[in-house]
Amino acid sequence: MDDRIFGTNPVFEALSSGREIDKIFILEGARHSRLAQIISLAKKRGIHYTTVSRKKLDELSENGNHQGVLAFAAAHEYSTVDDILSLAKERDEAPFIIIAEGLSDPHNLGSIVRTANAAGAHGVIIPKNRSVGLTATVAKVSAGALEYTPVARVTNISSTIDELKKAGLWIAGTALEGSSLHYDADLTGALAIVIGSEGEGLSRLVREKCDFLVKIPMLGQAESLNASVAAGVLMYEAVRQRNKSK
Amino acid sequence: MDDRIFGTNPVFEALSSGREIDKIFILEGARHSRLAQIISLAKKRGIHYTTVSRKKLDELSENGNHQGVLAFAAAHEYSTVDDILSLAKERDEAPFIIIAEGLSDPHNLGSIVRTANAAGAHGVIIPKNRSVGLTATVAKVSAGALEYTPVARVTNISSTIDELKKAGLWIAGTALEGSSLHYDADLTGALAIVIGSEGEGLSRLVREKCDFLVKIPMLGQAESLNASVAAGVLMYEAVRQRNKSK
Repeated sequence: MDDRIFGTNPVFEALSSGREIDKIFILEGARHSRLAQIISLAKKRGIHYTTVSRKKLDELSENGNHQGVLAFAAAHEYSTVDDILSLAKERDEAPFIIIAEGLSDPHNLGSIVRTANAAGAHGVIIPKNRSVGLTATVAKVSAGALEYTPVARVTNISSTIDELKKAGLWIAGTALEGSSLHYDADLTGALAIVIGSEGEGLSRLVREKCDFLVKIPMLGQAESLNASVAAGVLMYEAVRQRNKSK
Repeated sequence: MDDRIFGTNPVFEALSSGREIDKIFILEGARHSRLAQIISLAKKRGIHYTTVSRKKLDELSENGNHQGVLAFAAAHEYSTVDDILSLAKERDEAPFIIIAEGLSDPHNLGSIVRTANAAGAHGVIIPKNRSVGLTATVAKVSAGALEYTPVARVTNISSTIDELKKAGLWIAGTALEGSSLHYDADLTGALAIVIGSEGEGLSRLVREKCDFLVKIPMLGQAESLNASVAAGVLMYEAVRQRNKSK
């Protein structure tokens, strides 16, 4: 499944058809009316675009006839936060959600979707910008889980956290300076677990929004775990506590 | 760090110097005395070799002047099972070991070494054949953990399990048909956790050697977790139990 669309007409059509687009790349310095239309449509739909060099665009299109524009289409439709909350309601379960703040590696996002499905979570929330979207690699690495577990993409993680708090969820952030070990924290009930990006962890803003911070004990020299492993450890500690508290 | 050596002299020298070699590829049908020497040395050192087509060899060497032979050198020295047991003794801890039966993805092995280090395990054991070795990718993905956590490579996982049993370890296998959930099993004390390959899980032989089998509950549609995530969930459940039982 290829998720790259290039050339002015194909990109324009993908945009106007309402197809999910993760990101658009435009040749720097390029000015023609079709590109202006594309930029205006992208703005209207809230799709992130960026200008890049001809070398980069040639590379992304594998030397295809890109005519100065290339789009990454989502390999899968996005859901909404409401879809995720409805799924929990439908199953008559306390909402259990994973928020991945800014992953850049599609393998990590795919693996998190797979684990979220296995752990019985109701969905995954990612930000629109500064995060990998639902690319073909994410779909593949999720091993089919993307067909079942909704992934919502939001403009602002902070305000989504406020929304989730209003819906009664507790927000657990993961940080090296977390005050309690993950297995000492209460991970039962309506809960969202927030995972930070691979390099940086949680942003200060999001960290401050969390109700509590937990840390996974690091007993050797490694400073952190791979993001998808950390997410798996936390999700399954929540599964254990939920099962024990029944 | 490149871990590919090609050309008859470089490969011969790497072999005679005692450098750790994971695998050797030889052009099919090629017969000359230098190659015969290489094969004889490889046999003597118990290094796996295989014949491949010219196309494959050109590809592996990126069209380099391979002269019919290419070796994958280990990016890191292997340890022995004794080294791992000694490390536990040195730290005055009950041995805690991960056995990865036949991983093909270097990202999984690298991530398992990283998590093993973080979880305070004393080492990782992999088989000589049908497993990725300590390649440059494994070293990179381990994020430095490979410098601290010993990885031993053994000829026969089954007989290594016997050896570990004699040393007083309990052997926990992971399998979908495991009789208890991972958090209901006792993962304290001297323990080796055996993780199966990405596609196949544990082999029948190794499964039968285990003292007990555990399963991670699968609550959605996903049939299994990524191997490195499953390993992380199990290792940190062991960490939790070890800390609670103190």
